[in-house]
Order: sequence, then structure tokens, then C-alpha cells
Amino acid sequence: MTDTTLKPIVDCLQYAKWSKKIFEEMREGGVHAVHVTIAYHETFREMVLNIEAFNRWFEHYPDLIFMGRSGDDIRKAVRENRTAIFFGFQNPSAIEDDTGLIEICHTLGARFMQLSYNNQSLLATGCYETEDPGITRFGKQAIAEMNRVGMVIDMSHSAERSTLEAIELSSRPITITHANPHWWHPALRNKSDTVLKALTEAGGMLGFSIYPHHLKGGTDCTLQDFCQMIAETAERYGVKHLGIGTDLCQDQPDSIVTWMRNGRWAKEMDFGEGSADNPGFPPQPSWFEGNLHFKNIAGGLSEVGFAENEVDAIMGGNWLRFYDASFGPQVA
Amino acid sequence: MTDTTLKPIVDCLQYAKWSKKIFEEMREGGVHAVHVTIAYHETFREMVLNIEAFNRWFEHYPDLIFMGRSGDDIRKAVRENRTAIFFGFQNPSAIEDDTGLIEICHTLGARFMQLSYNNQSLLATGCYETEDPGITRFGKQAIAEMNRVGMVIDMSHSAERSTLEAIELSSRPITITHANPHWWHPALRNKSDTVLKALTEAGGMLGFSIYPHHLKGGTDCTLQDFCQMIAETAERYGVKHLGIGTDLCQDQPDSIVTWMRNGRWAKEMDFGEGSADNPGFPPQPSWFEGNLHFKNIAGGLSEVGFAENEVDAIMGGNWLRFYDASFGPQVA
Repeated sequence: MTDTTLKPIVDCLQYAKWSKKIFEEMREGGVHAVHVTIAYHETFREMVLNIEAFNRWFEHYPDLIFMGRSGDDIRKAVRENRTAIFFGFQNPSAIEDDTGLIEICHTLGARFMQLSYNNQSLLATGCYETEDPGITRFGKQAIAEMNRVGMVIDMSHSAERSTLEAIELSSRPITITHANPHWWHPALRNKSDTVLKALTEAGGMLGFSIYPHHLKGGTDCTLQDFCQMIAETAERYGVKHLGIGTDLCQDQPDSIVTWMRNGRWAKEMDFGEGSADNPGFPPQPSWFEGNLHFKNIAGGLSEVGFAENEVDAIMGGNWLRFYDASFGPQVA
Repeated sequence: MTDTTLKPIVDCLQYAKWSKKIFEEMREGGVHAVHVTIAYHETFREMVLNIEAFNRWFEHYPDLIFMGRSGDDIRKAVRENRTAIFFGFQNPSAIEDDTGLIEICHTLGARFMQLSYNNQSLLATGCYETEDPGITRFGKQAIAEMNRVGMVIDMSHSAERSTLEAIELSSRPITITHANPHWWHPALRNKSDTVLKALTEAGGMLGFSIYPHHLKGGTDCTLQDFCQMIAETAERYGVKHLGIGTDLCQDQPDSIVTWMRNGRWAKEMDFGEGSADNPGFPPQPSWFEGNLHFKNIAGGLSEVGFAENEVDAIMGGNWLRFYDASFGPQVA
């Protein structure tokens, strides 16, 4: 299935302050595909404005980036020395209350959608709610429609019960694009052994996050610690279910993390994973500050004992297989 | 260029009250491609709702219809005995005041856009205005963007000066999808010799309308009269620039023509091509009442002396060549 000579590097979650500089760093860092968050709290029309902005970047920097739609676009990126940009939503606000918008958004390029972002959504519960009643009536229909058209369910910011129900309800494998195991670092956003077992047993993928709040030791987490955690995760759930989803927010000002956490809903400030003392983006660990540093991760994985084909699989080969299987219409 | 064995039947304008019955009639009538009006006065979001409705028809009737995106989809329709549905706008309201929406709409399937519909738009003047100041500042940028992405400029309902300027400003051939020559029947919507010369000399296409208000004698116009008019048009401008764009509004109630003419703008009733005495849809001529009757036109064209290859070209071969050349990104 997977072409073992291809060795793509895939990052399954970034929300950088996009610029020519960052697209050049993707190229210099050898990144072939990035799942880009195109919307958090935006309405459909606002999300379309964000795609329009990316369309201008695609028009201005065709030698660096292009819109990715299928696994084959990762192969194209490798062949043409460019980076394929895949769109995704961190919250389902862009589909408003309209299941028909799922296919529309898929046509516009969206390939991932989180069913909730920290809070209760129309579809599912977020990981910061105290109660999790599971997938809603609309959520069940949205999951079926996402399965039909080939939009992947992402539960990175969702709560436990909703996540387990989504895995169960979905007829296609789902993903947690950016989180780490809770047994390694018990952050609210990291995922329980129960969730990771269910996710991977159903064929799903976990993308390891390098957002400091998801790391044991935060900014001071060492590359070796991070890679040893990956090794233990591989032992528990199987290496073929693992990839990278850095959650990189390169060059973003702190006002952006405030907006992510507060959207338009919070009248009282919500600090999310931060705190009043530490409200902004935490500094990245020195071994992963941006798109130039993927080779550090690959090196770290080798050093903790992964074989070369396993390193290649984690760095992108597994995502390529998952993209191949996930983005087309469901085969009856 | 054109595959002479293919013989597609293409109708470059319909706005029927879509139903399974009509899609079945398209198949029974041997129609391989239809340019469907997906929006008149709708905002972007309202237009997307109309695409969502068509997506449901595509899902429910895959044996009858599918979304057309390129000339190759006409070949696919012939091969698979289905009808390719191409979307278009009769008014630019769906792109609102946002040039970036042109590429978004193209991605969603829109392949034609009229720059104005009877009234002044943000881009151009409609044929019912008393003054025609020509293409606007926004209009010039919209034409360049439509050229870039492969959305065809349609001036069917536009005024003379705006039409001539659009032909001149566009770097790619444009079209008048549904109108007849003014020299045959001097209706306000029919087009002057000057316009038809400029259109065809620039490589553009004229689609002949069978909307009774565009016909000499209206509903009583005979098939022979209609086909003789086509013969004279071919003599004047060349057969390769001619196709069919019936303007068929099959099964629509009269309330729809009232909405077309009045949108949300008219507080005083506007009767358009009708009148207070005759406000509704006029009855179709008996030789063309719907999608079952395309063979009548082909027969009529033969009877007025067109050779078989010319009949094939007018019935769809010319549109196929035009679709092939028009819907992809502009080649530098």
C-alpha cells in the first residue's frame, strides 16, 4: 500500500501566522504536507474568507505551496518539491446548523473537522466542559455525512465520552490530530489510555503534539523524553497508528491564543491551558521551534531505537496511508 | 480538436423546477449536458443552499445526473448515459462585493456568470436600464479574475455598451448563452448585429433561446422559422460560434418569473418582457416543450439545409469545444 521509497514528512496540525517566510521554511525543512487550521470559531462565510486568503497565497507562491485534496497530492509535493496544504476546522462552527455544508466545505478543500473545541458544540462536547452527554442528534447525522463525503472526524479538543462515541459511530477511522497520551503528561487535552486504545483499534491515527502545555515538563521537555513517549505509545497501540501533529502556532501573537480560547462566547476571560500568570503562547522547546526542525524529531526517533522504516512511517508514511483512505467518497 | 463521432447534445441554459421527472426526461431526450442556473438574486450563502439542494439530487439520482466541471464531463456523460449539470449565475449577486468569491464559486462548480441581469449590477449594466455607463471598476477586476480561474462571462441580460466592453476587456472568449439576433426579432433581450459580430470575432458563442418572448411570433413561431434564423446567423457569423441555450423553465410556476424580474429590489411590480395583461410564463412552442424535444431542433436544422456535421456542431459539438477551452485556469 504505502510506497516505502517515498518518505514524506507530514505535519497534521499547524496554525501559523502564514507568510512567505514560513512557506519557505516548510520547503527548507522538507515538509511535504501540512494540515492547516482554516477556521476555529468562524461562521461559514468567515471561513470562506480565510480560504480566499489562502487562495491568494497559492496564487502568489505556486513554487512553494498548493492546495492538497488527496494522498496523491503528498506524492505530488514530494515529486515537485512543494508543500501540499490541507484544510481543516478545529470547531464545527463553519458548518453552522447545516449538514449540507459538510459536502460544500469538502468541495472547498476541508479534510478534517473537530466535532468540538473545548466547549459544547452543536455536535459534541469539548474537553473543558464538566458534563459530557455524548454525540448530539445533529452530531450523529454530521458523522454519517462526513463519512459519506470523506471529511475526517478529529476529536483533539473533545471530551472523553463524546470521543468514544464518535469512534464507535463513525464507519471510517477517525483521528486525534494533535494530543499526547494522558499517562505521559496528565494535561486535560491529552488522551486517556481508553480513548487511545479505542481510536487505534478502530484504525484511527494519533498525531503527537509539541505544544508545550501537552508536553511533560512543558517548554523544558527534552527531545529524548518526547521520543521515548512515542516509543511507549508505539509499544502500546502499534506504530502504524502514529504520526506528527505539532500544533505549531509559529509567529502568532498572544492575542491569537486569547481568541482561540475565548472566541466570541467568553465575556469573562478564559485562560484555557494557560493561566492569569501565563496567559500567552508558551515558548517552544529548543528542539522544535518551527518548520525547519522536523529532522530533529526524525533523529530523536532513531536514537530511541526506532528502525528507519518506523521513523519514516511516523514522520509521514502513516498519514499518507490514512489520507489515501480517508478523503474520497465512502465506498459502499 | 472536437471528436466528430461524439455528437453530444448540450443545452447551455435551463432553469427548470428540477425533479426526478425532468432528469429522466433529460435522459430520454438524449441531453448530455445542461448549464443550469443555480442563482439569480441570491447572496453567496443563499446560492450555496441551492448547490446543497443539487448535491442532494446528485446523491439521490446518480444514474441520471452528475456535476459537470469540464468538457471531459460531457464525454463522460455520453459514455455513461447520464447528464452532466454545469452551474451558472444569471446575476453576480452571489459574489457579493468580493472578487475572492469568484475562485470559491468556481471551486464549487460555477462555470458561467452573467455580469448583470436586466438591472445595473456592481459589475455591468443590464439591458433594461436607460443608461449604460459600461463595465465598472469592480467589473474590470472581476473579468480578469474570471479569466484567470476559468469562469465564463455571460452577457445574455446585459446592455449593449457593457457587452461590447466585456468582449473587449476579456482575454478569453465570452458567451451569450440564451438570446437570439435582434435583426430577426427586435426584443430588448435579443442582440444587435454589432454585438454578435464582436462576440463571434473574439471567438465567443451564442446560444439560441426558445423562450417565447425571444422568438419571432412568440409561442406561434414555427420550427422552420427558428431554424431558418439559425441558418442566416450561421451565414453571417459562422456556424462554429452557434449552440443552443433554450432558457427552458420547465414546470416552473408563474411566481418564479415574477421573482426573476423583481428579486428583492422591486417595490412596484416589474413585468420584464411580459406585461400586466400577460404577466406569467408564456407557453412554449409545441415543437419545444421540454427536454424530450431536442431531436425536433436537430431535425429542423437538417430540413433547412445544414449538413449532418453542422447539425452536430450546433446541437452540442461547438459547446463541447468551448467548454474544453474555457473552464480551466488561464494558460499564461
